[in-house]
Amino acid sequence: MNILVTCDDGAFSQGINTLIKELAKVGNLTVVAPDRERSATGHSITFFNPLRVFKIREEENLVFYTCDGTPADCVILGVYDLMGSRPDLVVSGINRGANMGDDITYSGTVSAALEGLLQKIPSIALSVAAFEDVHYEYASKIGARLAQAVHNYGLPERTILNVNFPNLPEEEIKGIEITRQGKTIYEQKLIKRMDPRGIEYYWLAGEIPFGEPEEGTDFRAVYEQKVSITPVTLNFTNFAAVPLLRSWKI
Amino acid sequence: MNILVTCDDGAFSQGINTLIKELAKVGNLTVVAPDRERSATGHSITFFNPLRVFKIREEENLVFYTCDGTPADCVILGVYDLMGSRPDLVVSGINRGANMGDDITYSGTVSAALEGLLQKIPSIALSVAAFEDVHYEYASKIGARLAQAVHNYGLPERTILNVNFPNLPEEEIKGIEITRQGKTIYEQKLIKRMDPRGIEYYWLAGEIPFGEPEEGTDFRAVYEQKVSITPVTLNFTNFAAVPLLRSWKI
Repeated sequence: MNILVTCDDGAFSQGINTLIKELAKVGNLTVVAPDRERSATGHSITFFNPLRVFKIREEENLVFYTCDGTPADCVILGVYDLMGSRPDLVVSGINRGANMGDDITYSGTVSAALEGLLQKIPSIALSVAAFEDVHYEYASKIGARLAQAVHNYGLPERTILNVNFPNLPEEEIKGIEITRQGKTIYEQKLIKRMDPRGIEYYWLAGEIPFGEPEEGTDFRAVYEQKVSITPVTLNFTNFAAVPLLRSWKI
Repeated sequence: MNILVTCDDGAFSQGINTLIKELAKVGNLTVVAPDRERSATGHSITFFNPLRVFKIREEENLVFYTCDGTPADCVILGVYDLMGSRPDLVVSGINRGANMGDDITYSGTVSAALEGLLQKIPSIALSVAAFEDVHYEYASKIGARLAQAVHNYGLPERTILNVNFPNLPEEEIKGIEITRQGKTIYEQKLIKRMDPRGIEYYWLAGEIPFGEPEEGTDFRAVYEQKVSITPVTLNFTNFAAVPLLRSWKI
């Protein structure tokens, strides 16, 4: 199995480097990862700048490239050039911080997997719900087992797996649950500062958003110390709203 | 009605500047637009750089700011600081080029409206399906009428309107249709070049993707020279896949 691996925390993050040790046991890896953290880039691809790619490591079943683009750019570069042939699987992660609820719309990690979906390649996104003292080991093991499972079973059409782990060592994990996407409540915050030349600038400074822990959701599973696996697709239509809108006079 | 306006083609694009002339007839406008084209930035928000905002115009019912962030950043800046109070409506556009099918995942235009949704503000995205000789006039008029309609009727919860116009003058438009999101077939392309110092770089160079013109979709409506209005929400779960995944041994 030929696996394309990327990670929006960048090529030098602990997440991807723990993951590839486990994934290398189940497949040949091509890693194409951003040369720095690219969190919150969403499904951004790079139109206005050229992209640079550097090979930084080559071993028996691993070739590792860095790229100055987004995670979705990395997938395109891997699929259309660097791998020579189409991968059997795209794995994105392991992300530092959960990608649950509405947050997946901002997520570089999930978007890399969605780029895989659009290229018709089975894809998995992996994230751990913590920013400090993150437990990547168990998530890496499950990542490798899921890679194998996806290879064995195949994935439904236009569907990726969005996997979120509670930040716990293996022995404290309460199981694996198939979930639906929850909802997120955002409270953005802006910090306004003055530069040394007296001109204002802003930082986006929102807190980590709050997820509604409704039954059956990704948030609820992780809250209950379970691994959450959400089958994610790209379908934005609100079908329920169609008849309503038809009644409007515009 | 206080309207926040943005556009991923940037503050100086013809699309936004045609639009605000019509929108100014139905509301007080605050424009916060990127200082350059930010197409294909998806739902990217800026974490690693501060954001600069400049006021470039002020008239009776219009204040116009530029910002060096993404369209979604512009919405956050407008809502949390520049407008002083929450807007009644976010309007994003008019984009040069359609935002239909799977393309909405890459779209800065639609993502600005989705940012509005996450901030619980009714939001509309407007795009014309052409890159040259774009007819913005009719799209601007319908944009203003839709703004009024959304203000009158309200929008269903967690739903934005994604509106795409065929590139035609008003008299050739065949009507308005409420649609669902279609599917897009992508064929990415990479162009590899050598810089003057002999180092390779890549350009993403995919053609404009092909949309499947299935009955009832955005693609089909625009193909039939109608305005397409798709109610778009943020729900990525593939519910049909849940029982299947539950049967997996992982």
